[in-house]
Parts: sequence; structure tokens; C-alpha cells
Amino acid sequence: MSEMIKGNAVVGQSGGPTAVINQSLVGVIEAVADCPAIGKLLGARNGVRGIIEERFVDLGGLEKNLLDRVAATPAAALGSTRDKPDEDYCRRIFKVFEKNDVRYFFYIGGNDSADTSRIINELARQAGYELRVFHIPKTIDNDLRVTDHCPGYGSAARFVASAVMGDDRDNASLMGIKVDVIMGRHAGWLTAAGMLARQDPTDGPHLIYVPEAPVDKNKFVEDVAEVYGRLGRCVIAVSEGIEDSTGVAWAERLATRSERDSHGNVQLSGSGALGDYLAEIVRTEVSAKLGGKKLRVRADTFGYLQRSFAGYASRVDQKEARLAGRTAVKFARRGYADGSVAFRRKAGRYGITCFRAELHEMARETKPLPPEFIAPSGNNIAEGFRDYAAPLVGELPKLGKL
Amino acid sequence: MSEMIKGNAVVGQSGGPTAVINQSLVGVIEAVADCPAIGKLLGARNGVRGIIEERFVDLGGLEKNLLDRVAATPAAALGSTRDKPDEDYCRRIFKVFEKNDVRYFFYIGGNDSADTSRIINELARQAGYELRVFHIPKTIDNDLRVTDHCPGYGSAARFVASAVMGDDRDNASLMGIKVDVIMGRHAGWLTAAGMLARQDPTDGPHLIYVPEAPVDKNKFVEDVAEVYGRLGRCVIAVSEGIEDSTGVAWAERLATRSERDSHGNVQLSGSGALGDYLAEIVRTEVSAKLGGKKLRVRADTFGYLQRSFAGYASRVDQKEARLAGRTAVKFARRGYADGSVAFRRKAGRYGITCFRAELHEMARETKPLPPEFIAPSGNNIAEGFRDYAAPLVGELPKLGKL
Repeated sequence: MSEMIKGNAVVGQSGGPTAVINQSLVGVIEAVADCPAIGKLLGARNGVRGIIEERFVDLGGLEKNLLDRVAATPAAALGSTRDKPDEDYCRRIFKVFEKNDVRYFFYIGGNDSADTSRIINELARQAGYELRVFHIPKTIDNDLRVTDHCPGYGSAARFVASAVMGDDRDNASLMGIKVDVIMGRHAGWLTAAGMLARQDPTDGPHLIYVPEAPVDKNKFVEDVAEVYGRLGRCVIAVSEGIEDSTGVAWAERLATRSERDSHGNVQLSGSGALGDYLAEIVRTEVSAKLGGKKLRVRADTFGYLQRSFAGYASRVDQKEARLAGRTAVKFARRGYADGSVAFRRKAGRYGITCFRAELHEMARETKPLPPEFIAPSGNNIAEGFRDYAAPLVGELPKLGKL
Repeated sequence: MSEMIKGNAVVGQSGGPTAVINQSLVGVIEAVADCPAIGKLLGARNGVRGIIEERFVDLGGLEKNLLDRVAATPAAALGSTRDKPDEDYCRRIFKVFEKNDVRYFFYIGGNDSADTSRIINELARQAGYELRVFHIPKTIDNDLRVTDHCPGYGSAARFVASAVMGDDRDNASLMGIKVDVIMGRHAGWLTAAGMLARQDPTDGPHLIYVPEAPVDKNKFVEDVAEVYGRLGRCVIAVSEGIEDSTGVAWAERLATRSERDSHGNVQLSGSGALGDYLAEIVRTEVSAKLGGKKLRVRADTFGYLQRSFAGYASRVDQKEARLAGRTAVKFARRGYADGSVAFRRKAGRYGITCFRAELHEMARETKPLPPEFIAPSGNNIAEGFRDYAAPLVGELPKLGKL
């Protein structure tokens, strides 16, 4: 264990927030308070943007009561940013760091933020500016490599599972066909969590489509007609990023089609468009396949609620996100120059250990849902996914039926 | 207290389900079990539809453990229906009732179901069929007359308040303009609950539009531009049923416009359309008003999650819905021939007493949000609404900010 360099620290939050990104922030605050080498801890408003604009908040001496409330509050308490610094941006960061004697930088975010951390880290070395850079992962997409899962995922997955669970009961009450569009442009981890809603064999979601398993319109229509013919109803969970067999996202094709329709009308290519489009396919083509049967069809796009809903986070996710923040500071105390916090799942009863990953391992490339979690039919999630995801979301309601 | 007529009972659920409609069902089951005059309790699958099709489930002798699970499960455990019986339909009901010696009918539903109960009650009298008819209210719309509030509302309002609360933090993280479309075609009660998300003066929702306060597009654009100019962000809660000053619903106008566009393209008139349309207005007209500023705009339509989300019901609402079911049976025990269960709020510390309302008082006409709950500006909810709604949703998360 080498000596820690003395100086101040900056912590920031970046990218799309989650329900537990503030847990990681509070984890950093708590651990830095126990760290004599670090003087002040400055919170950068809106991530790297707040650094170059010198918008800092002193995070020392805050009351435990406030910190606990902040930790339980969804979204980024310091504000977030989508900025990705280039070389010039980084130089401005170092200038501000130098001015404030900042030697530690903790950055909470997804793979883009890991890459930002990596760039800052490298450019600091090149510039001869002594800096310790630690990335703390968060993403509801759960698509970071190296780590078993990501802080933020469990809470979003819990929201999705509970939403689909209730929605399936609603659908069973009045029957018909329901489409639920779930976040996930490239990875199906969050949509897959819909499968946790199933407690009995005929429970929905009856079909689950993820970007990793392309589906063409004809197959979709066949699938839905088959389920409806069998059960008289069908609940479909679908990732916003589903693709057809040529690798084009449905939503993208939809946007193109809307653009072609140029009569001065408002283009409805916003967030509800994919769900509405899928509902329309059911209303027309699935109906035709069922001999012209008039179908009750509804579509919901879960939207930002998945990452921000207040008061329903997963407790496991909350604890782990807090631990990730603390662990980043621990890595700094152990004398590491940089790194990211990754989780390894223990064998047997659920539990994790943290380990240090290299910044570049978390950056850029993402981790898709592996093939073993996708049913061979391509239109559902394999039962084995339950073992992976259930411990992350925590206890779900137990349904009662008559 | 007159003697109870001996016979069997039927209970059914009707209309759009809620998160606590099964609490009322279990309330009926529990109370009937203590009622010697009533023999069997038959659950009708899918409301009145299940009666004429003789699809019944015997609700006697069920284990407490199962009943508690059923009570906590969202949506209608017996299945629901949109059927509204006419004279002929009623005759078929009486035939089935006679065959099964049914003398008590408990119907859980909204104002349509109250009207159905009223019709069945009147026609039973005319037909000389001795029947006791009791309606048990439920609706997330909270728009039944006579009663202080409706079972089902508190839980939906709790969902909306928590969703808007988290969403407002999300918006504060990345800034921009957010539109949240909330259920309520004619009444703004549920959308109004969005105001419970506010804990500090600059918290959203910053604008709330309800059907009871018409708004034209120009005013909407002005309102949003004003808030954005002041705060750099804006969260807008809007009822799906908002109307313009001519009394036409925005969504209706939108549907008409889509219908006019007949190029063989899919018509996006589904559930996400109003939110997407409002987002587009912000992207174009609000942006123009702000000198062409490029705005980050998102829209979510909360959809069916509001009435069906599992595991986040209001405890007060759960208790009261159970009580409503029990109270309907109590009215029957007291020898009343018919009626509906209404709530009166006690003075002082929150609490309710139940009273019997006439079926016709709950039927057909609905109760809009009264003017005193709408801000004079017409684009927000008055602070006084908090006292009305807060006890119904239960404790909400306490936000922590830095």
C-alpha cells in the first residue's frame, strides 16, 4: 500500500441518471470523509461541464440525515451532462484542477463516462499533471463489460418487472393485446427483466423481443396471432431498439417513413411512436391473420419512469451502488492511480465482491445479452435469466389469483 | 334492522381495473363469510358477462393467505367487462339468478357500473324478482359524485406523484422540457396529483393542465416558454383529455388530423400520440418563441401503469377499498334493498366514515375537479389540493438535494 498523494478531490455524475446514482455519490462522500490525504471534496455540477465552468459545491460536513435523503433520491443530485471532453476540454479541466489543487477525480457514469475518465487519465499523464482517476459505473442498460452487473440496473429492472406484472393482470382482466416498450437501444437486459413478472405458466409477458434477437414484421405478426389464438390475450415486452433481420432498428425505419410523409403535418417520431406503430400492426395485420377479428390493442412506452421513479428502487441495488462509490475511494487509498469498480458474483447464495477493472475495460464497447439468456425461438427470454436477475431486483409482489 | 332475505350472492368486477379493486372483492368475501343469511358467494367472471354465461367461481372457504395475496394484486381477479346490460340482458341475468337462488348482487365498478346496478335493481323490481343490489365504487378517475373520494384513486395518485417526482429530478439533471401525459379524459383529479411531487419552490411539475381548465395552443406555448426562460427547464403534467377553448379535446383534433392524412401510412393515433404532439409543439413553437433555441424535449405517456403497477399501492387506499367491500355487505345485513358505498371525510386528522348513497347518485354524471383546486392562471393546481390528496396517497419519498 503506497502513500496517498495529498490534495483535493472532485466528484461528478454523467450520462442518463438512474434511481441509485446518488447512492454512489454518497458512498464517495462518506469514504472521502474518512480519508486524511484528501482535503476538500468538491462536487462538480453537471459533470465535466461544471469543472470547466468552475461550478462546484463543497461536499464536506454534510449531515448524515441529508446524505441519506440524497442517496435515496433518484437522478443526479449534482446534475449530469452528455459532454465528452476532447484534448482542449481536458486542458481546461487540468487548469481548474491545478487551481483548486485537485488530485483525485471520481466520475460516476456509464461506458461513455468510463471513456471520458480514460481520456482525462491519459491526457493528465501526458501533461505531467499528477491525477488519480476513478470511474464508478452506473447504467440501467446493464451493458458494461467485465462487471457481473451495473449499479442502476436492479432498480430499473425492478420497475419494469412490477410494471409488466401489474399490466399483465390488467390485460387478463379485460383481455386483448398489450405492447410494452422498454428502454434499451442496443442491449436487451432491461426488457429481459420483464420475464420476472411471470409467476404462473400463462402469465405474461408472453413474448419478449430484444435487440440481440432480430425479428421481422411477419414473424412478429405470426407470434402474436399464435399466442392470442391460444390464450385469447397477449402481453408483449419489446426493447425500443429491436431490429429486423437486416440489422435495421424498427424505430429507425419508422422515423424514415415519417420523414417521407411531408405534408406539413407534425411528424410523430417521438417516444410513443414505436409502441403506437406496433399496436397498429396488431390492429391490422394480426387481426387479418385471425380472420378479421376486432382486437382490443393498447401500447405503453415506459419511458423515463424506468430510470427515475421515486420510492421503488431495489434495496440490493441501492446498497451495491453505495458500495461502488466507497470502493472507488478505497482503490485510491490503496494507492492505485486509476480504475473502475466492477462486481464479481459469489458462488452459492447471492453476494458480490468488488474488484478493480481498468478504465478501458469499461469504456466504449458494450456487453449484449448473451445467447443463453434468449429462448431458441428468438421471441422470449430463457428461464435461466431468472437466476441472474432476481437477486438484483429484490423481492417482488406475490400475485394471488382466483 | 329488518330480517335478511336468505339466498346466495353474486359479486362481480367491472370497468377499468385499479390497484385495489381486489381489496373490495376480498372485503365482500370476508364479510359474507360472517353473514348467516347468505349461502354461497359466487364470483362472476368478467362481471355481468360472466353471469349470463354462467361462469362462476365459488368464493367460499378460501384460505386467508390466498385472500390477502389476491387483495394485494392489481387489476380484477375475477376479470372485468365493459358490457352494459339492457332490458333483455337483465332478463337473462335474473334467469341465472333464479336458477342459482341468488338474492344479493355486489358490483364493484365506476359510474357505469353504478348505472348498471341501478338498471338491474329497477328491472328486478319490475320483474318482481326479489334482489338486493349494492354497488362498491372504484375508479382511478376519482370522479364519482356524493363520495369524498373513490377507492382506486389514492393508489393511482401515488403512482403519478412518485413518477412525476422522480421525473422532475431526472429533468433537473439534464435540463430541457418534459411532457408527462396522465390518464383522465374528463376529470383532472389524477393529473392534479402530480402537484404532490413538489417539495421545494422550483420543483416540477411547473405547469399542470386539466380538462376542467381549457388551454389553447398559443397559451400553452407562452406558458412553457415563460417557465423555461425562468428556470432553464420545465416539467409539464397534462391530462390526456385537455381541451381547447372551444371545448374540443386536443387528442380528438389530433386524431382528426391523422385521419385526414390518408397516404396508406400507418396512422399514429395510439396512446403515445398526444405526448409526441405536445413535444413537437415545444420543439418547434416554444423553440421559435425562445429565439430558435434548440431544446431537449421528451414526452412520456404514463398509460396503464397508473392503474395497474404492482407493489406500490397506497396503504390508505388499500384499507379503504377493503372497507368499502365489507360495508356493502353491512348495508345488506342492515336490511337495505340497495345502495352504494360513499366516504365522508372526518374533520381534523384524516379519517373517513362510510355512508349509504343511492345508486342513481353514483351513476352517470361525474364530478369534475372543483374550481378552487385550479390555480387562477388555469395552468396549475392550487396548493389547497395538497390537503385533499396527500392523505389518500400515503407517505411519499422525501427528496434530498445538494
